[in-house]
Amino acid sequence: MPPIEDDQGDQNVLKILVATDIHLGYCEKDAVRGNDSLVTFEEIMENAKKHEVDFVLLGGDLFHENKPSRKILHGCLAILRRYCMGDKPVQFEFLSDQSVDFKHCQFPVLNYEDPNLNISIPVFSIHGNHDDPTGQGNLCSLDLMHTAGVVNYFGKTTSLEGIQLSPLLLQKGNTKLALYGLGSIRDERLHRLFVHKNVTMLRPREDKDDWFNLFVIHQNRSKHSATNYIPEQFLDDFLDLVIWGHEHECRIDPEWNSIQNFYVSQPGSSIATSLSESETAPKHIGLLHIRGKDFKMSKIPLETVRQFYMQDVVLGDTSLNPADHDVVKKVEAYCQEIVESLLDKAELEHTGNNKQDKKPLIRLRVDYSGGFEPFNLNRFGQKFVDRVANPKDLIQFHKKKTISKKESKE
Amino acid sequence: MPPIEDDQGDQNVLKILVATDIHLGYCEKDAVRGNDSLVTFEEIMENAKKHEVDFVLLGGDLFHENKPSRKILHGCLAILRRYCMGDKPVQFEFLSDQSVDFKHCQFPVLNYEDPNLNISIPVFSIHGNHDDPTGQGNLCSLDLMHTAGVVNYFGKTTSLEGIQLSPLLLQKGNTKLALYGLGSIRDERLHRLFVHKNVTMLRPREDKDDWFNLFVIHQNRSKHSATNYIPEQFLDDFLDLVIWGHEHECRIDPEWNSIQNFYVSQPGSSIATSLSESETAPKHIGLLHIRGKDFKMSKIPLETVRQFYMQDVVLGDTSLNPADHDVVKKVEAYCQEIVESLLDKAELEHTGNNKQDKKPLIRLRVDYSGGFEPFNLNRFGQKFVDRVANPKDLIQFHKKKTISKKESKE
Ligand SMILES: [Mn+2]
Ligand SMILES: [Mn+2]
Ligand SMILES: [Mn+2]
Ligand SMILES: [Mn+2]
Repeated sequence: MPPIEDDQGDQNVLKILVATDIHLGYCEKDAVRGNDSLVTFEEIMENAKKHEVDFVLLGGDLFHENKPSRKILHGCLAILRRYCMGDKPVQFEFLSDQSVDFKHCQFPVLNYEDPNLNISIPVFSIHGNHDDPTGQGNLCSLDLMHTAGVVNYFGKTTSLEGIQLSPLLLQKGNTKLALYGLGSIRDERLHRLFVHKNVTMLRPREDKDDWFNLFVIHQNRSKHSATNYIPEQFLDDFLDLVIWGHEHECRIDPEWNSIQNFYVSQPGSSIATSLSESETAPKHIGLLHIRGKDFKMSKIPLETVRQFYMQDVVLGDTSLNPADHDVVKKVEAYCQEIVESLLDKAELEHTGNNKQDKKPLIRLRVDYSGGFEPFNLNRFGQKFVDRVANPKDLIQFHKKKTISKKESKE
Repeated sequence: MPPIEDDQGDQNVLKILVATDIHLGYCEKDAVRGNDSLVTFEEIMENAKKHEVDFVLLGGDLFHENKPSRKILHGCLAILRRYCMGDKPVQFEFLSDQSVDFKHCQFPVLNYEDPNLNISIPVFSIHGNHDDPTGQGNLCSLDLMHTAGVVNYFGKTTSLEGIQLSPLLLQKGNTKLALYGLGSIRDERLHRLFVHKNVTMLRPREDKDDWFNLFVIHQNRSKHSATNYIPEQFLDDFLDLVIWGHEHECRIDPEWNSIQNFYVSQPGSSIATSLSESETAPKHIGLLHIRGKDFKMSKIPLETVRQFYMQDVVLGDTSLNPADHDVVKKVEAYCQEIVESLLDKAELEHTGNNKQDKKPLIRLRVDYSGGFEPFNLNRFGQKFVDRVANPKDLIQFHKKKTISKKESKE
């Protein structure tokens, strides 16, 4: 990637804040963690404002529940109204036909082109599997946000037979962006559609080669089974960059696919929705700069995300003796020390942002094979009830490293 | 009431569209009636636009369900965005402190004073008992609409001990309006608060007598029990006009209360939510003109409301003989004829508005005392399945005129 100067004055650089899987409402009823998702969404939008981006691009799962609570819908509306509106003029042009691009919406208009709304930072979003359209009218929560004028919801497909993806065409200075989006579809179905060549990506007629082709998708990227994911090879090779939603591990640094000749960036979720390895990777959002056919992805660490530490303990590898008469107590004390050390680490590594809560998530995976016995988890958790966010599931006992891979639906 | 000229040019006349109990989502899942509430809400807002009102005042129960479906929230947002926004300037001033008046809201601002929203017809609403605040954050659907910028939600009280009502102060030309609102509260509780003198209505300090004092309330007006309603006498007598929501019968023509020296106008619901006598009164909304201390309420008949006809039948008063061997058949034929005649009437009285569905609601209350027997209601309804909106409950059988008064929660 050739360097792009992060020059505020460069009228040819499209600056896009990229985030995905914000999961508003996750753990909403938890007294400690209930506001985490809204807090970080606000941080994301603050970044959009601070960095004066041209727009925000979201990769699905903005909402955790298909039918979010009133509190969450309200919180989302409030944040979007607060950060998307204002006097800063939108500095890119929209070249495609919005009445076609948004024909699935009751208001087939871009919010920033509606003369009744003063939008300074447009948000574009596809839906994820958590917030996909269902029920009467085939609506989703993004339809509510779109009709409220705070989101531009695209990538909604309705045909069952085949998918034709028509890009949103944006231009800033001499940079031209063709933005493709595809809201979440059952992986097996989309896999089949690709295999049968029933997914078509339309391309702009004029100056075909001048466009930067960006695709945002929300599907399994890792192979769960033969057909339960979308291989990168299925995607058109004229693409320049794919923003991959749904996968929660932050792998935002663009990865080169040398077969397809495109980059893939996987921003990952902005909240840990499971206590799994992949969620321990530090959470980031991206600042994507595009000039002509070049791009640069700068990553911004999120400062409000609740800290999450995970550690594996193999009791058989320690000096602990399963035959010891008070071994259970000793194992518990041993684990307690580890949690204490992780709490120390959390304190040291706290970002200093006052919206980052002080209680981290901690997960010890304890292999107790070799004659050891689990200790009482409730009692153990009680010791940390004021210091960790998840006292109830601090410890996961298992044998012989066969950790049950939780079927997490990201 | 002295006459007020309905002069578009009169810069001293506040023109307010008054409606209440719109019950969006009522019967939402009914294949025939499912859209009735949205259709009529749109008609109401069309009227607001057509008559170029200064604002719309709603008296509660905008939503039928406390947690409306996505389709209904979406439909409401769409209608409000479509009709409230535009370039027509708002022509009255707001004199009270909006940050106080709307302190219960996350956006304590009037939507039309937000420079980011281009509002031409502000909507002011209190909540009813159907859409009152509940749950986390004590929010209601009107909070969603307020935060989306399409409604100004007022009259939300939070104190449990006493209520202080501070009016919104509006001025147009030399007409000054003090607008009081009180969202629905359990009748018993409010009754008690009034009895104990714990409801206070604050008055503007300056030119106290120049203000037109309007109060919108959503409570039982008719006496259900000793304390389960709010007697008009409880209300302050400095009021000029009370808009009474919650009661579904249209009694919109202002009624003079000579003890209190104020008028009461009860617009009634814009949809029949029960097949009771009170809902048969033709549905209207009001066009309230205020100039100085004078007002005029013009009523506008709603054209899209589903027609509703009710008729009482006393079999003992007819020539039918209960001893007849095929009397059941004859009774059924007799009722069928009445339904037919009501269908004829409905056809004649159809408003001609193409959004008024052709299938009326029909209810026959059949008194079968004196040895008669009810006929099969399912089979009877089947005959009219394509011609009435409520084939399943066309007929209500009862004895000796003791019609069970349905405890309807308006
Ligand atoms: Mn997902
Ligand atoms: Mn997700
Ligand atoms: Mn009511
Ligand atoms: Mn009602």
